[in-house]
Order: sequence, then C-alpha cells, then structure tokens
Amino acid sequence: MQVDIGKSILDRNERLAVENRALFDRHGVFVLDLMASPGAGKTATILATIATLRDRYRIAVIEGDIASKVDAEKVKAHGIPAVQINTGGACHLESDMIKRAIAAFDLDELDLIIVENVGNLVCPTDFYLGEDAKVMILSVPEGHDKPYKYPGIFQVSEAVILNKVDTMSMFDFDEQEFRSVVHSLNPKAPIFSISATKGEGVSAWTDWLAERIDAAREKAKARPSNGQE
Amino acid sequence: MQVDIGKSILDRNERLAVENRALFDRHGVFVLDLMASPGAGKTATILATIATLRDRYRIAVIEGDIASKVDAEKVKAHGIPAVQINTGGACHLESDMIKRAIAAFDLDELDLIIVENVGNLVCPTDFYLGEDAKVMILSVPEGHDKPYKYPGIFQVSEAVILNKVDTMSMFDFDEQEFRSVVHSLNPKAPIFSISATKGEGVSAWTDWLAERIDAAREKAKARPSNGQE
Repeated sequence: MQVDIGKSILDRNERLAVENRALFDRHGVFVLDLMASPGAGKTATILATIATLRDRYRIAVIEGDIASKVDAEKVKAHGIPAVQINTGGACHLESDMIKRAIAAFDLDELDLIIVENVGNLVCPTDFYLGEDAKVMILSVPEGHDKPYKYPGIFQVSEAVILNKVDTMSMFDFDEQEFRSVVHSLNPKAPIFSISATKGEGVSAWTDWLAERIDAAREKAKARPSNGQE
Repeated sequence: MQVDIGKSILDRNERLAVENRALFDRHGVFVLDLMASPGAGKTATILATIATLRDRYRIAVIEGDIASKVDAEKVKAHGIPAVQINTGGACHLESDMIKRAIAAFDLDELDLIIVENVGNLVCPTDFYLGEDAKVMILSVPEGHDKPYKYPGIFQVSEAVILNKVDTMSMFDFDEQEFRSVVHSLNPKAPIFSISATKGEGVSAWTDWLAERIDAAREKAKARPSNGQE
C-alpha cells in the first residue's frame, strides 16, 4: 500500500534538487546526504569525520530534525559552521529546505557539506537533494535483520557504515549475514565497520570519502564551463 | 515545513479506524499499537509480553514492515497467530491495513492483539488505527536525547518502554534526564525500564498492560449494547 501523494511533490523536489546541484557544482562543493535511524550515531559519525578531514577540507554541516537544535549545537561546539533545519513533522529533508539552509553559508569557502537527514530508514530514500552521494549508517544494536526490512535505503546508498561495532559482544548481531544481505541488495557499496565514538575504523571511511571528494573535484576541473578562463 | 497531503488521507484513515474500534468492542478485544525505531526491540518486547501473559489472555500479533516477513515468523514460532503486513514503502500502518489483517483472525478467540507498527519515530504518530492504546519503545543505544528530537511520539504514547537497559554501561545514556524530558512532554505516561531479551523489568510493564486490558473489559461489560440478553 503506497499513498499516492507522490508525483507532484517529488517533481518539485527534483527540480529544486537540480538547482542545488548546479549551485554546488559552480562552487566546487561536495555534498554528502547521511541517513540512519534515530540514535544510530549520525552526529557522532559526522564529528569523527570532521576530526579526521578538517585539516584537508573546509567543512559545514546541515542538521535535519523534526524538532530541537541539539545536533547543530554539538557541531558548532567544534568550530564548524552548522545550520539546523526543523521539519516540524516531515520525516525527511527536501530540496527546498537545503536551498534555504545553504543560504547561510559562503559556498566559496567550503569543500564539503555534510547533511544529516531526519532519523528514519524510510522517508529520506526517495528524495534527491542535489547531493553527490547518499550514505547510510546502521548501528549494531539495531540488529542485522534491518536490510531485509528496509531494503530501499540500503539500495540507494553508495556506502554503508556499520556503527557501534565496539558493542558487538552485547548484541546478537551476525556481521557476516549483514554483509551478505547488504551485498545482495547493493553489490557495489563498500561497508565500513566503525565505532564513531571510539574512532575505530573511521579512517577507512574517511579515505573513501576523501577519494570521492577529490574525484568530484577533478571532474569539475575538467568541465569547460567551470574553467576560470 | 509540513507536506499538506494530510486531510483526506487522515479522514479516510479515521473513518476506518472507528470501524475497527467498533469491531474490537463487539468482540471484546484489546488492541495495542506498539511503536519504535528500527531495532529498538519491538519484536523482542512482544515475545517477552507473550511469554508473561499467554496463560492469562489469548493473544495474536499483527506485524508491520516495509518488506519481509521475518517478524511474523518469529512470533508464529512461539505458537501465536500472526499476520505480516508489508507496506511496500509507507512508513506507518493505516486502518485499512489493520482491517484486512484482522480478517485472518477469529476475534471471538482473542483477548489481545498486539500491532507492531513500522519502525519509525515519526509517521505512526498521526494514525489512529482503532487501538486501545499506543505505547512506544526507546532503546538505550538510541540515546537519551530522542524525546527532544521526536516529541510527538512521546506525547501520543500512553506508556513508554525503555528497552535494552542491560546495555546501559556501554552507552552514555542519562536515564534521569530521559525520564525528566519524557515527563515534561507527557506527565501521565509511566516509563518502564526493561531488558526484553533478559526478561528484566518486564513484569511491571505486563502488569500495567493487564490492568488496562481488564479495565477495558469491565467497561465493555458495563455497556448495555454489549450484553448477551
């Protein structure tokens, strides 16, 4: 059963996403859309990513939540520009929210914007925001059966982060089964096992991200429309 | 920002919920709508509840998921009738799905139906299914800040279960702050700290539920329209 609200909202979202994309291209900014359940460790992963990459890239963060501004405050406490979006009730971010949020940044002063989507394994899946990549986090306490139940989000993600691996011994989590199901849904996506709060495994993830950022830059340089001449 | 799909879908849902409600009343069935994030332990809590209450009440379960039937199979393995609803993509259950699911049960042979809603702290909040009570689960690994971010679901719940308390030492979870914020959002809701897999604290929760079920029965008996004469 699908509620057929879809087409006009998605069309409008898509149109604005393309505008966002053009803006990011013009300013050479790489945008990551990070999706996960509530409490999977999105903010902790963002902070770990910032700690590793801040000397290499100029980073800003857009935090999406139904309510509250606790996450943006956490990021700002680390000296990183952050904007909080409160959706009021909507369970995902949309392109127009991103469009308004980026108005707070000087895009020429940024290399990477990390967007923390609303905590949810369903709604963010269908909404293109103009990002370069969607990446999702699953945390060990959520259980290895989640790819069976929420296949869509595993399919649209270009990489999957398995967080809180330091707590593996406390939970009945079959990592081999998890990797095998994710692989069957999405053969190309790498899976990074990390503990964001302990720093474990983070460098493999940030190496992948840095490679993606650098590749996008090379591609942008090669485009004649982006040249300075 | 709220997407205004709302009124006609909610109206239709409400109308069918009232029909479900009338059916539950006619057959004296208590219906619980259990909501939580993916992996918070809904199915484990249902299994613990069944283990405690199965000698006292005749129980059935409706499992809601985007995809898969793993949860219904887990419940059936315990000899309890279960129906799996796959929403396809919708992030919550609606009344018409419940209406179709209960057609699989003989309601005269049941005292309690537990509905496991789709894993999500947002969407299920607004949809009345005809249930007697909505109850939500938050698990310790998700973090004590969730009531700030998802206030709505804490407000519509008649009781809040805090699950996985056996893992408290692994996480930076401030239980006192959690209880105080939940209390400020919803002063009447009791908060039950449990470990569904270890059985810890489960009896306080099931005592509360049994009291609610018995009270609903007494009320039903007192209604003249429900008499046998």
